[in-house]
Amino acid sequence: MFNQLGVIGCGLMGGSFALALKKAGLVKRVVGYSKSPSTTETAKRLGVIDIAAESALLAVAGSDIVLVAVPVAATEATFRAVKHLVDPKVLMMDVGSTKCDVVDAAQRVLGKQIGSFVPCHPIAGKEQSGVQAADATLYQGRQVILTPLPQTDAALIQKATDVWSALGCQVLKMTPQNHDAAFAAVSHLPHLLAYAYFSTIANQSAGRDFLSLAGPGFRDFTRIAASDPAIWRDILLANKQEVLAQSQRFRDMLARFEQLLQQDNAQALEALLQQASEGRSQWQMGQLSGNRPR
Amino acid sequence: MFNQLGVIGCGLMGGSFALALKKAGLVKRVVGYSKSPSTTETAKRLGVIDIAAESALLAVAGSDIVLVAVPVAATEATFRAVKHLVDPKVLMMDVGSTKCDVVDAAQRVLGKQIGSFVPCHPIAGKEQSGVQAADATLYQGRQVILTPLPQTDAALIQKATDVWSALGCQVLKMTPQNHDAAFAAVSHLPHLLAYAYFSTIANQSAGRDFLSLAGPGFRDFTRIAASDPAIWRDILLANKQEVLAQSQRFRDMLARFEQLLQQDNAQALEALLQQASEGRSQWQMGQLSGNRPR
Repeated sequence: MFNQLGVIGCGLMGGSFALALKKAGLVKRVVGYSKSPSTTETAKRLGVIDIAAESALLAVAGSDIVLVAVPVAATEATFRAVKHLVDPKVLMMDVGSTKCDVVDAAQRVLGKQIGSFVPCHPIAGKEQSGVQAADATLYQGRQVILTPLPQTDAALIQKATDVWSALGCQVLKMTPQNHDAAFAAVSHLPHLLAYAYFSTIANQSAGRDFLSLAGPGFRDFTRIAASDPAIWRDILLANKQEVLAQSQRFRDMLARFEQLLQQDNAQALEALLQQASEGRSQWQMGQLSGNRPR
Repeated sequence: MFNQLGVIGCGLMGGSFALALKKAGLVKRVVGYSKSPSTTETAKRLGVIDIAAESALLAVAGSDIVLVAVPVAATEATFRAVKHLVDPKVLMMDVGSTKCDVVDAAQRVLGKQIGSFVPCHPIAGKEQSGVQAADATLYQGRQVILTPLPQTDAALIQKATDVWSALGCQVLKMTPQNHDAAFAAVSHLPHLLAYAYFSTIANQSAGRDFLSLAGPGFRDFTRIAASDPAIWRDILLANKQEVLAQSQRFRDMLARFEQLLQQDNAQALEALLQQASEGRSQWQMGQLSGNRPR
């Protein structure tokens, strides 16, 4: 049980965490700060936070748990703004989709406060963004990856594990490097492809007519192309080496499919489609493999 | 009201049509044929069809409405097998996802029976295939594209329109060429990309570990990669010129995104992401644009 949660960035992720912690009865009071005063105001009006703070630093003052839920490129500036009030017993977490850059920022900025910081990535989200989309059940049943630093306080890693578990999450630990390689493959690349695909269609002269004919397959395939552009600008740039490497692999595979089409090679094409179709049919979300990367 | 529906190909599409027609009280009896006898047997056991036919021709005998629901590459052979029993008053439709090849096959094969054939493409489906996945509500609320031939009987076009409307569909008419260009863009290309993307991940040495970490974005983005490989082999090959042209456009757009990443051009990258995100947020399935291609 915490006395006060300080949320920096009252968007979808931060707002949902506040609502979830309240719903679970794990916090007495939520203080929130957002860069845009209207967001902080809306968060208060919707009951997502109890008290609006005038600055990130004031959201940390008196808090025993802090969630930094800003676009990843804003993490370093946020650390700089709040570090003076991060007491060694405070649990400070983030929710960034990339971890090497966040960990590097923490190493550069946090100094002796670094023990308080537990880098987190909850595998949850939806295409809507903003505090209006905040949802107490967003994290329920999801995985959360922790990528602790060598200096992170072991007791706070345990505390972070306990909090996410109490929200119904499955908690895993990985290195920031393995995290970023894996999420370039299963999250960042699909977002890049979905954005690029939607742009491909929308920018054709017949694009509007085409879009009016699109069905449920298109709907699901492009859902993530409606994600927040500022968030995804930061994620793609922060993890660009891994993302570009995965995109290269993808282009090679697409070229293989195209070649078989060009050649009318029905048999080899079906074999490739079949392998993917079977693999995808067997896949289940959140089902852990035997040998997980550490 | 029809006396007898003949279904050739008792899979997801054919089975769902039979169930929907029965549910709407539009048919007294359903006779079904599938290439695999075990499928026909399962269709009968599940109540999807009333009578199992020993051949495609026998499924047409005595039917006043016929649905050809086979992979598009099997359409021509099916026409050849049944044409002798297609009476001028019989309504014969297909459900193929490509239309130029189906219309060409009809022109080659159907001879004086061609007036009976109304080429149809219902924009419906799910990733499961086979008669077990048949669903009386599959077509409800969906669009159906008709691409009639010059020789198609006008009264049968009206009858086809009435049947699909009675199942809750919105019926549109287009040329086969405009149909195939549009669906290369909004359906065939996304399937190709989803298959190629899933293969990219699954064929990496760490692929299994990566897949165990994938979340809801990945789930929706790859749903269509679980589609039936034989069906999609045929569709991609039948419409390969349009599909390859769309894939080329996509690769150009992806290269533009990659270049902005390489250059760390955050502003231009965000502008591209923003355009796609806004476009996708405003898109609604089945919302017709003002100037539809004919």
